[in-house]
Amino acid sequence: MIEVIKKHRSIRHYTEQPIDDATLNEILEAGIRASNTGNMQIYSIIITRDVETKKRLSPAHFNQPMICGAAAVLTFCADVNRMKHWCKVNNADAGFDNFETFISAAIDATIAAQNVALEAEAHGLGICYLGTTTYNPDQIIDALQLPKGVFPITTVTIGYPAEQPPLTERLPLEAIVHYETYHDYTDDDINRLHAEKEQLPQNQQFVRENNKQNLAQVFSEIRYPRSNNEHFSQVLLDALKRQGMI
Amino acid sequence: MIEVIKKHRSIRHYTEQPIDDATLNEILEAGIRASNTGNMQIYSIIITRDVETKKRLSPAHFNQPMICGAAAVLTFCADVNRMKHWCKVNNADAGFDNFETFISAAIDATIAAQNVALEAEAHGLGICYLGTTTYNPDQIIDALQLPKGVFPITTVTIGYPAEQPPLTERLPLEAIVHYETYHDYTDDDINRLHAEKEQLPQNQQFVRENNKQNLAQVFSEIRYPRSNNEHFSQVLLDALKRQGMI
Repeated sequence: MIEVIKKHRSIRHYTEQPIDDATLNEILEAGIRASNTGNMQIYSIIITRDVETKKRLSPAHFNQPMICGAAAVLTFCADVNRMKHWCKVNNADAGFDNFETFISAAIDATIAAQNVALEAEAHGLGICYLGTTTYNPDQIIDALQLPKGVFPITTVTIGYPAEQPPLTERLPLEAIVHYETYHDYTDDDINRLHAEKEQLPQNQQFVRENNKQNLAQVFSEIRYPRSNNEHFSQVLLDALKRQGMI
Repeated sequence: MIEVIKKHRSIRHYTEQPIDDATLNEILEAGIRASNTGNMQIYSIIITRDVETKKRLSPAHFNQPMICGAAAVLTFCADVNRMKHWCKVNNADAGFDNFETFISAAIDATIAAQNVALEAEAHGLGICYLGTTTYNPDQIIDALQLPKGVFPITTVTIGYPAEQPPLTERLPLEAIVHYETYHDYTDDDINRLHAEKEQLPQNQQFVRENNKQNLAQVFSEIRYPRSNNEHFSQVLLDALKRQGMI
């Protein structure tokens, strides 16, 4: 297996060492080699290294320490603004303000993000994805001054690792992969496929700390509760409308 | 730069050689090592190798030859069905039928897809992403028998290459990357950043073949016209509602 894929773990604590420009450029060049829709490259990467800009960005990510602690914060955005501008100067009708184009651009931005993440790791850097990017997109739009047509999808923080955490467990391949068509699970399948995960000491501790009966309750009622998911869905939809993406 | 990232080109023509199970398993294991939201792994991978299932899938991808020509077709899906079932057997309230969770799951599915694509290439295989996955999701849902809570995001076809196309051009890094905050483009910026792309012989030929004045018009009026984008946006939204994702 590709070494950086096999060894990947999220790194949340970084040293003070900055990333030199040559390294950063090679990481970014790896990003833009990624597959993308029709080679239109309808995404942008915003690189934040300045302390003040990171501080403005931090609340949108619930002040997780990776934002201010990382040497560079890379925000990957769906971007039809540049494409529309190119069409405008070429007298071309640009019909890119719609949900289909947004989803294509979001996929493109994410593929580029993973190339960047792996290339950074190949240079000895540590990375962490921040899923909070789509929780408070309105705040990120303001902090990074994103114009209409540009929307934050995911964030990757990058810096030299100040920790070496263990690999995180994964469900067995059988839980994720289906052959030919989808084969839905029986209750027994679900229990069997989650047994190893549920029995890990760190996950059992997680259940005790949260005063829940089991791990599924921790994920669905503490970490990702319905009320939060529904609130952030509305914030996300409102922000998409504000940016003219739908 | 990581060799497979540097050398990536989309491969659309494959030999008849099948992928052995050990290789396929290593590729899939690389996929599930990918970063994902809260380690919930809310995605699935459907592997289609059977000729009849590929034929059923083919029209959804406008009968592009990669579907029937590839040794394996991998459809990456956002999947809250498994998570909800886990919650049900654990008496946990699962609030995952919403837009925020869908977007998180779509990002997770895409990061896994890019790990799979790169690992496949590291084994000497060729890959091609099919953006058509979000154009006709309703047809894919039927062909792959996806239950509620499961939604196709992107497709990667994999097989041994029967062609060696040249690298595809990319816009200069300056067109994609912004420092600290977004810096919007002037008309001159747009012209300068697209000049090299517009002057490539294959792109000039593309303009002539399509009887257009310039490359921007080919992309926006022939390849990705407004009417198509708006039609497929509606199909996509309807399919998301059908699957209970929004």
